[in-house]
Amino acid sequence: MSSSVSPLAPTNVPEMPEIAGVRLATAEAGIRYKGRTDVLLAVMEKGTAVAGVFTRSKCPSAPVEWCRAKLKGGKARALVVNSGNANAFTGKTGKQSTALTAQIAAKAVGCSQNEIFLASTGVIGEPLDATKFDGVLDALSEKAEPGDWMSAARAIMTTDTFPKVATAKVKLGKATVTINGMAKGAGMIAPDMATMLSFIFTDAPIAPAALQSLLKSGVEDTFNAITIDGDTSTSDTLLFFATGAAAANGAPKISRANDERLKAFTKALNGVLADLSEQVARDGEGARKLVEIIVEGATTKASARKIAMSIANSPLVKTAIAGEDANWGRVVMAVGKAGEPANRDKLSISFNGIRVAKSGARDPSYNETEVSEAMKAPKIQIRVALGLGKGRDRVLTCDLTKEYVAINGDYRS
Amino acid sequence: MSSSVSPLAPTNVPEMPEIAGVRLATAEAGIRYKGRTDVLLAVMEKGTAVAGVFTRSKCPSAPVEWCRAKLKGGKARALVVNSGNANAFTGKTGKQSTALTAQIAAKAVGCSQNEIFLASTGVIGEPLDATKFDGVLDALSEKAEPGDWMSAARAIMTTDTFPKVATAKVKLGKATVTINGMAKGAGMIAPDMATMLSFIFTDAPIAPAALQSLLKSGVEDTFNAITIDGDTSTSDTLLFFATGAAAANGAPKISRANDERLKAFTKALNGVLADLSEQVARDGEGARKLVEIIVEGATTKASARKIAMSIANSPLVKTAIAGEDANWGRVVMAVGKAGEPANRDKLSISFNGIRVAKSGARDPSYNETEVSEAMKAPKIQIRVALGLGKGRDRVLTCDLTKEYVAINGDYRS
Repeated sequence: MSSSVSPLAPTNVPEMPEIAGVRLATAEAGIRYKGRTDVLLAVMEKGTAVAGVFTRSKCPSAPVEWCRAKLKGGKARALVVNSGNANAFTGKTGKQSTALTAQIAAKAVGCSQNEIFLASTGVIGEPLDATKFDGVLDALSEKAEPGDWMSAARAIMTTDTFPKVATAKVKLGKATVTINGMAKGAGMIAPDMATMLSFIFTDAPIAPAALQSLLKSGVEDTFNAITIDGDTSTSDTLLFFATGAAAANGAPKISRANDERLKAFTKALNGVLADLSEQVARDGEGARKLVEIIVEGATTKASARKIAMSIANSPLVKTAIAGEDANWGRVVMAVGKAGEPANRDKLSISFNGIRVAKSGARDPSYNETEVSEAMKAPKIQIRVALGLGKGRDRVLTCDLTKEYVAINGDYRS
Repeated sequence: MSSSVSPLAPTNVPEMPEIAGVRLATAEAGIRYKGRTDVLLAVMEKGTAVAGVFTRSKCPSAPVEWCRAKLKGGKARALVVNSGNANAFTGKTGKQSTALTAQIAAKAVGCSQNEIFLASTGVIGEPLDATKFDGVLDALSEKAEPGDWMSAARAIMTTDTFPKVATAKVKLGKATVTINGMAKGAGMIAPDMATMLSFIFTDAPIAPAALQSLLKSGVEDTFNAITIDGDTSTSDTLLFFATGAAAANGAPKISRANDERLKAFTKALNGVLADLSEQVARDGEGARKLVEIIVEGATTKASARKIAMSIANSPLVKTAIAGEDANWGRVVMAVGKAGEPANRDKLSISFNGIRVAKSGARDPSYNETEVSEAMKAPKIQIRVALGLGKGRDRVLTCDLTKEYVAINGDYRS
């Protein structure tokens, strides 16, 4: 946890309402950090449905493997998250740690181990001593209360500089339901999965299969469309819990994701996912600029995504932004190396609305002073028009600064 | 051109012999830099064969397009290289610049424009004023001499901190032939093409098709196996010229790449390519460590290459090396994100010969002090054993330091 908050941190942090059927508690289990909370227990009412998406890493962490297996049941009673140790690349010991943690949690909450979900974040390759949860989870289960979402979001942080929460209220049938979410992550962030750790809760009564479908399509343009360093974590986990408690207020029980009544809910959910994933990009390690990359005129959306990611992951583009340099040459380079259809002589590039390149060359109206001034903004939008088709996509990233190198050149030791 | 030489620069710079049939000259054309040479003219004897490999960027520079077109003729009389301006993303003007440069060079040397080869390196997106070559190339053609290879290597530098040359003498039939090479490049270096600018010359009498074949297979494990920042340039060019002058000393004329008599020559050529490409990695922008990544036990060589490149391009691995941290967790992450077959529980990882991880967990014999000491070396070898098959590959890269960010956050302005 860094001492200075990212200059890109949101200035308005929402009041987080309660979610009927969810209780939270945090503690200092002393896993790695001193003087801060490092374990979160979320206890859910019986009948809570669960959905999840995970890293596509070929070397996933033990908790990811645990969750994948338990997700088949579709039911959750508790979530245990620890920071400071990722329990990744820990061999058999890691598997034993997850089993022991689940056993302790199941006893504390009074449920089956199959209803326990786990996530760990922090250093890779160090054994996680699950006996540290003994007693701690019992106490947490007892003191868990509906209220303190900010404390929960704080307990799961590692190199994050601010806790990340988002909330929405929306009509489902005639009832109002709530969606709360939290996320953590600042490095080892790349697309191709539900990036880093994020947990979404709702009191809406939605069946597991429908929940999974909503989540999967929701992450596509949110968590899967951000990148900080192109480095896909072994531990990325996004879990979505639906307690169903709003059924008591008349919310209809939903079993299919394409149910018409979900329209507003889906929009609200996607808003929460977009909010949280943007906060992750805003807390990119060492970030001083939020960078939005829009690629349009590509042959397809998938092609636009690939080109946008090539730009977003280019160290040369990212260092140029850090230097407040509208270096479109490097954007051209990144378009060129993506391997997707592109025609140099149809390419146009804008920075924060000012066109700097047009039809494969410098824009004749280019004004260095005007562009330099625009590059001082904390948010930079790079818009690339390929002029080939209707494929469009948008990704978020951040700049690459000396602080990123400092943070990551001295993390483990 | 940086003022301080990379600490990884070779300590022994070879004496560069002459190559019969090649004359060199350099000048200050004032393209961008002041007080240094920025244009190189190499004049070759009639009958010189040429081969080339280029960037696979979809947005290549104007000189790359020029060379690709002229390569079909297989014959070369002159090479003009300028530094300071890449003549890339310069639209029609760029194409006109190459045509004008070739016209001036052809007149100066007294040959067809189809025998002129061009390369430009430097800033992207700025028009290159080819009229600056007027007169300059005439003078260079006149004063060109067999001798000064170091001056030639210096004239083509941009952010390089040292000139890069290599040489070999080898028997071809009963004659001794010479291979000289030079290269430049320190950023925007990635595989998937003949990286950056490099020019190889020999007096061996080898026909264009055979020369092309030798070059293509030679770059696979040399220039295509290095990466500095994963950013593929718009301008990467590797040209190989064979004057054939050694035929006068009895060297046999070779027309097929699989000619048995080429065995020693091929080995010597690959040695020159390996030497030059390693020098490029050693001069990676801001580099303080040369990093050799060996992946073995992969299902295929191609799979090993993909995993090795995933490790070599990971900002988290590269910053860890900069911090002298044997952070195998990040190596695991990079293996996992490559998307290639890998089994976490069979994975072993060594740093400079010290095994830190074994069978998917920390090596029980791991000794932090011993490893920390080893990480202080200027050359770090990361060896990853996958335990799946016989696929093996090796790539070279460098660490990612604050200096990289400093160099690239303030390059254009």
